[in-house]
Amino acid sequence: MPALSEVIAALEALWPPAQAEEWDAVGTVCGDPDAPVGRVLFAVDPVREVADEALRLGADLLVTHHPLYLRGTTSVAATTFKGRVVHSLIRGSVALHVAHTNADRADPGVSDALAGALGLRVTGPLVPDPSDPAGRRGLGRLCELDEPETLAEFTERAAAGLPATAQGIRVAGDPGRTVRTVAVCGGSGDSLFEDVRRAGADAYLTADLRHHPASEAREHALHSGAGPALLDAAHWATEWPWTEQAAAQLDEVSDRHGWGLRTHVSRTVTDPWTARAASSEPATDTPGAPN
Amino acid sequence: MPALSEVIAALEALWPPAQAEEWDAVGTVCGDPDAPVGRVLFAVDPVREVADEALRLGADLLVTHHPLYLRGTTSVAATTFKGRVVHSLIRGSVALHVAHTNADRADPGVSDALAGALGLRVTGPLVPDPSDPAGRRGLGRLCELDEPETLAEFTERAAAGLPATAQGIRVAGDPGRTVRTVAVCGGSGDSLFEDVRRAGADAYLTADLRHHPASEAREHALHSGAGPALLDAAHWATEWPWTEQAAAQLDEVSDRHGWGLRTHVSRTVTDPWTARAASSEPATDTPGAPN
Amino acid sequence: MPALSEVIAALEALWPPAQAEEWDAVGTVCGDPDAPVGRVLFAVDPVREVADEALRLGADLLVTHHPLYLRGTTSVAATTFKGRVVHSLIRGSVALHVAHTNADRADPGVSDALAGALGLRVTGPLVPDPSDPAGRRGLGRLCELDEPETLAEFTERAAAGLPATAQGIRVAGDPGRTVRTVAVCGGSGDSLFEDVRRAGADAYLTADLRHHPASEAREHALHSGAGPALLDAAHWATEWPWTEQAAAQLDEVSDRHGWGLRTHVSRTVTDPWTARAASSEPATDTPGAPN
Amino acid sequence: MPALSEVIAALEALWPPAQAEEWDAVGTVCGDPDAPVGRVLFAVDPVREVADEALRLGADLLVTHHPLYLRGTTSVAATTFKGRVVHSLIRGSVALHVAHTNADRADPGVSDALAGALGLRVTGPLVPDPSDPAGRRGLGRLCELDEPETLAEFTERAAAGLPATAQGIRVAGDPGRTVRTVAVCGGSGDSLFEDVRRAGADAYLTADLRHHPASEAREHALHSGAGPALLDAAHWATEWPWTEQAAAQLDEVSDRHGWGLRTHVSRTVTDPWTARAASSEPATDTPGAPN
Amino acid sequence: MPALSEVIAALEALWPPAQAEEWDAVGTVCGDPDAPVGRVLFAVDPVREVADEALRLGADLLVTHHPLYLRGTTSVAATTFKGRVVHSLIRGSVALHVAHTNADRADPGVSDALAGALGLRVTGPLVPDPSDPAGRRGLGRLCELDEPETLAEFTERAAAGLPATAQGIRVAGDPGRTVRTVAVCGGSGDSLFEDVRRAGADAYLTADLRHHPASEAREHALHSGAGPALLDAAHWATEWPWTEQAAAQLDEVSDRHGWGLRTHVSRTVTDPWTARAASSEPATDTPGAPN
Amino acid sequence: MPALSEVIAALEALWPPAQAEEWDAVGTVCGDPDAPVGRVLFAVDPVREVADEALRLGADLLVTHHPLYLRGTTSVAATTFKGRVVHSLIRGSVALHVAHTNADRADPGVSDALAGALGLRVTGPLVPDPSDPAGRRGLGRLCELDEPETLAEFTERAAAGLPATAQGIRVAGDPGRTVRTVAVCGGSGDSLFEDVRRAGADAYLTADLRHHPASEAREHALHSGAGPALLDAAHWATEWPWTEQAAAQLDEVSDRHGWGLRTHVSRTVTDPWTARAASSEPATDTPGAPN
Repeated sequence: MPALSEVIAALEALWPPAQAEEWDAVGTVCGDPDAPVGRVLFAVDPVREVADEALRLGADLLVTHHPLYLRGTTSVAATTFKGRVVHSLIRGSVALHVAHTNADRADPGVSDALAGALGLRVTGPLVPDPSDPAGRRGLGRLCELDEPETLAEFTERAAAGLPATAQGIRVAGDPGRTVRTVAVCGGSGDSLFEDVRRAGADAYLTADLRHHPASEAREHALHSGAGPALLDAAHWATEWPWTEQAAAQLDEVSDRHGWGLRTHVSRTVTDPWTARAASSEPATDTPGAPN
Repeated sequence: MPALSEVIAALEALWPPAQAEEWDAVGTVCGDPDAPVGRVLFAVDPVREVADEALRLGADLLVTHHPLYLRGTTSVAATTFKGRVVHSLIRGSVALHVAHTNADRADPGVSDALAGALGLRVTGPLVPDPSDPAGRRGLGRLCELDEPETLAEFTERAAAGLPATAQGIRVAGDPGRTVRTVAVCGGSGDSLFEDVRRAGADAYLTADLRHHPASEAREHALHSGAGPALLDAAHWATEWPWTEQAAAQLDEVSDRHGWGLRTHVSRTVTDPWTARAASSEPATDTPGAPN
Repeated sequence: MPALSEVIAALEALWPPAQAEEWDAVGTVCGDPDAPVGRVLFAVDPVREVADEALRLGADLLVTHHPLYLRGTTSVAATTFKGRVVHSLIRGSVALHVAHTNADRADPGVSDALAGALGLRVTGPLVPDPSDPAGRRGLGRLCELDEPETLAEFTERAAAGLPATAQGIRVAGDPGRTVRTVAVCGGSGDSLFEDVRRAGADAYLTADLRHHPASEAREHALHSGAGPALLDAAHWATEWPWTEQAAAQLDEVSDRHGWGLRTHVSRTVTDPWTARAASSEPATDTPGAPN
Repeated sequence: MPALSEVIAALEALWPPAQAEEWDAVGTVCGDPDAPVGRVLFAVDPVREVADEALRLGADLLVTHHPLYLRGTTSVAATTFKGRVVHSLIRGSVALHVAHTNADRADPGVSDALAGALGLRVTGPLVPDPSDPAGRRGLGRLCELDEPETLAEFTERAAAGLPATAQGIRVAGDPGRTVRTVAVCGGSGDSLFEDVRRAGADAYLTADLRHHPASEAREHALHSGAGPALLDAAHWATEWPWTEQAAAQLDEVSDRHGWGLRTHVSRTVTDPWTARAASSEPATDTPGAPN
Repeated sequence: MPALSEVIAALEALWPPAQAEEWDAVGTVCGDPDAPVGRVLFAVDPVREVADEALRLGADLLVTHHPLYLRGTTSVAATTFKGRVVHSLIRGSVALHVAHTNADRADPGVSDALAGALGLRVTGPLVPDPSDPAGRRGLGRLCELDEPETLAEFTERAAAGLPATAQGIRVAGDPGRTVRTVAVCGGSGDSLFEDVRRAGADAYLTADLRHHPASEAREHALHSGAGPALLDAAHWATEWPWTEQAAAQLDEVSDRHGWGLRTHVSRTVTDPWTARAASSEPATDTPGAPN
Repeated sequence: MPALSEVIAALEALWPPAQAEEWDAVGTVCGDPDAPVGRVLFAVDPVREVADEALRLGADLLVTHHPLYLRGTTSVAATTFKGRVVHSLIRGSVALHVAHTNADRADPGVSDALAGALGLRVTGPLVPDPSDPAGRRGLGRLCELDEPETLAEFTERAAAGLPATAQGIRVAGDPGRTVRTVAVCGGSGDSLFEDVRRAGADAYLTADLRHHPASEAREHALHSGAGPALLDAAHWATEWPWTEQAAAQLDEVSDRHGWGLRTHVSRTVTDPWTARAASSEPATDTPGAPN
């Protein structure tokens, strides 16, 4: 069995930490570099339920997309849920490793997996990494549909391709609009609106869009007569496809080295939203309801 | 007919600009202080559709909750949708006035209107303003239900009380959990989680919650065995009730002064999300879908 | 008639906005990009009197050197004189466009026009723009006199060449000193003393010099036995020659495109100083007067 | 003869260093605290000519209003004019002491002396120092004229009262306007416009006013129908009256202690501007001159 | 046996975290709040050797003066010595708690223990905490000797009272000088020179003094004819006495609650310096040696 | 005799000011550029005793390694010891020139002299200056011993080679460890630990090491099984060898120009520590001493 340090070297070759954003906190959160690794679990969020799953599985290493401590801490005491996760993992000899914005920008990266889940053909990154001469690394992905669809049809495609969540997918735009080119960005994508506009995409699928950026994007599109339809899915759902992709990448490395690793993908839904209520049908005369 | 400057003095008495956050941009955006005012429209967002509604109505003043220029600008040219709104309003002799975080913190404020729309009894502000000896001003509101309900029942109450939107309401928490006390905050409320926990509310209704703060709040609650259920509605829907409340407040002022103002409340839905697709029913064996 | 957007594209080719200082606020302040433009007025300051002149003339576009809003604003309400200018211009369908430090650094630029008004031969920029291989763009200009003059003679030349103002020209230096090379900088030039010294100019003509920088420059010159004489004119007077130059540049563009524009140069003196009183002749024994 | 440390203690009682602005650099610049002091020279600027005057006089102490090093230095080498002043003074055993913004804010202060030179009756500070219960300390002074004058008459009064300089006094405002109340501020006063407006003064006399603040003040006044006429004198001229006042204050201290100090006031004009040329009479048809 | 949370509540009553400096990182670094505590080890530094000592002893809690992570970390992986300490402690079920600048400022605090080790009578804090009406809390301590000693005698007292280290004690000052009052500060004390001078102490005992502050303090003393002699001991040696004091304080709490805790004080010397070589006797003529 | 400006030009050729750190304050502190220079004294610290030595010697120029004013000052009054030094030097016509971090980084530099004093062969800089194609300039030096020694032997070498001080040399590491390669850095070297580790040096000799960096370096070495032994000498002692080297460099320049300068090296020990007391032998049973 390889040592943790060997497996981590392999993960860092796939998603080089130097390609993470400066504010990010990627790399190994806990674990002993000399410990042997036989079993690895991949997940989106390093939460209690996922740590328990790793312990139940007998995993030696948990790889997550989201950092446990995005900002530095001076305490891992088990008085908080994060410290409790650290104590559980260290006592159970499970290492934790994070590949976050370095996985977003990698080739293949988080948005490649998202495009794959929807059956889209990737044509390149939405924000290319200037340090990549091949032009494949970067944030988000631009994609093409083999056959144009209406926005309503594309929305159905997205609802079918992504793992199920309570929220479903919110849409802004004319349902009959034709969609040929799509920008996708796994996770929170509201900082990339300008790039999406510049790329001329017909639709933009991402997560965690708030009122002000979404409203400004819609007004901008109405003003200019151009601009993408918007699709907002659960943050977790847009990043989950990456865990399957990542596990497959590590399997390949393991085969190449004869490590015999057993990899697992967590199917625990860590989207915090567990239910949804539709609005009441707007009545004709209700005082207090604007219809 | 009163002059714009007189009407604005009345609005600033209701929602004193000095009570706005330091980063906010409240007050009169355009308009001539000497122009007469006969008709006033209230709305949440100063978007094109709302400006056109004001022009169609023949309004002399448009009062919105959201600023047009939250950050300063050096150009109002009609090359952007914001500049287009400015040109339309100035040419149509419609003034624009903004009451944003000063309306949030006022007594009554935006969250009082939200509580009223749900039929909740307000017991005080969630974050009291230390400068108010009466203890009524501040951010958010704490409320009580006359009879305890389950979270599922409370969710139905919220869905019925708020204006209809495509997104509906997202919920996190055990549907059978008892709800007696509720914290509400019109608009984006993710900076108030600590206050909600300290207040011991059973549920927290607000808008624009993103994955990381919602996930951390849920994990914190699971770790500590305490903490609120979460309800996330459309940002616009949580603030719309304020426009009715505000119009009624100005009506009362108008009556007192014999101004004869005609006030209107915009029923245009300016939530950017116009449709929603539910997730596919999770199949048993779908490769690529986790469950 | 060309659209405003076409005329502005021409102005931005003459004075590219990207060459403005980072702190500056150049470009179109108000106006509709699709409006037709037939008449253009050039001026130094976007003040009320100049806006009224544009309206009287029936101009469609006012081009000024000074920004209306150098720092960002969140309000153009007519409660301030700047908002009043915006309302007048928008209601009168006059666009406002600013070329400030981009015009200063252009080739030809503001200081070329200043040198031209004095009949000086320009030899190059005072602070060359490193991005210009031709070495012609930059701040200020170095000039040569065809025949050396005394400082007293050069002062007369400046007083005759610049438009008349109440302040006239203040001078520091020995009136009999020989002047062969001159540095000029339209507008406030006290940040360029070091460059003037390095260039070895015999005299420096600029505006808005205050006591401390002027005194330090004079002491530095006395200490080192070298250093320029100083001439301080009205800020407006040093920049007015640019309006004639700019109008001629736009005329040429108009001719090339067959636009048939009518250009005007405002002769309104917007220097704020409208009078001057000389000091009393120093009496021999006045207590309280240091002579 | 008192020691330097004793004389400085007396000066710091008159103009407490703690009342200087935080960015200022007041206090003793050079000198030996144990050296005896018999003769003291007061001046506005610590320039070479003034240092030489102190040496010629046999002064032991030079007191100036302006700092020699406003920003810190790590070198007093005689390679610069400031280092040359330090070397001359130390070799000649002349101490240098600075009272700058602490003298501005004192009671009596720099602006009291300025008001006195014009024969104005001071009614209080323009910007009162909140730490002075008597309400007499602060920046600038508000004054009253015993009999109203026209602006033209007041200008003549200022030209007669201040020491003669080449620049004279620049004026902005209607010459026939009545002046009853006047704000004065010795030195650069462009940061106090808001206070002058709030005080409702009819005229404001100060120095070093530049185009943009003066133009904005004039436009503001035209817009609002209220606001002061402006008078701009030489910086040095507005502060020189303080040197006489300060010398008299030290004389009084000297008498009280029986120190027998001999005080002198420098009559060297250290205004950098040594000449002025009036604008040419505007000719009717001059190309290139706007009139 | 009490739970960790109860013992920590007792420690935080002795050294309230709110009294720590803002930049400090005090409190519990690792451990489970519900774990029982029977045995506690006190030490200065949370280094590997001390963690091993805690494991050997079977301690449940290690209390140190120095933080493990003074600046925040996003990783406790055992790839660094700090992460190794965290892994050892969590696996061995030893909690780690830090009382740093809150212990420095407490009553009694670190400098009280230092004074006690030297047999000095404390008269008050060197830098009193303004929030303590009793005037006993604060940084450093001022002390008196019952009988005056020479600096040489006082140095011997310090060498005898502090735990032995390779460095011994460095001294600056005249050995024959009389010492009556002493300032002491456990740990690095070079930020308190100004306070020591103001207090008029004859000697100042602290640690980690570097060339520039020590040299400036000595020159200041020579210039002014006043100022303390300096004694510089090993940082660890000046803080070790606190561990005995702290253990005794917890013993008393344990007795009061009937907790039956067993407390230990680590005698491991964690001063990094393990040896010292004296300078060669200066020879008379050695080239390259200055004496 | 050359003028001061000529001698300083020669010093600045040896140690170019542009190579100093940005925060540093090098160059001429006082002196007249036209004064003749016949005699030059070199020393580490510009303290009173050294200034007096320069005056006694009749030196015209004092060159020190440490700045007098590292941070800027607005006063050189003789109320502080630094101002007293300035007054003494200016009155005695002694210039003061500082070569600090520019001398550290020069070729040869301060650490070359330190290596020379210990008989070490320099192989290159510890932190190479990227602007030096020859790879010889930079901070610190890496050295080799001709024959490996034990750490104990190397410590004796250092004690013999450096000028004598009260503190001697503190050592951290196994005395029997073999030393082949050594990193040296004159002055405070605690910012270079990372570079020393990267270079793989067996020992690191520098000054002013404090508890926390030294302890972290030791723990890092124990954790990784690699890392240098540490030797901490008096700051002054590590920089004094440079004064001899610098004097020799100026002698050579003087010979080349036929200047006939007389150079001196100060042998005044300006290390502030004048005595040391060893710790008491740890007794077996002393309460309060941890042995």
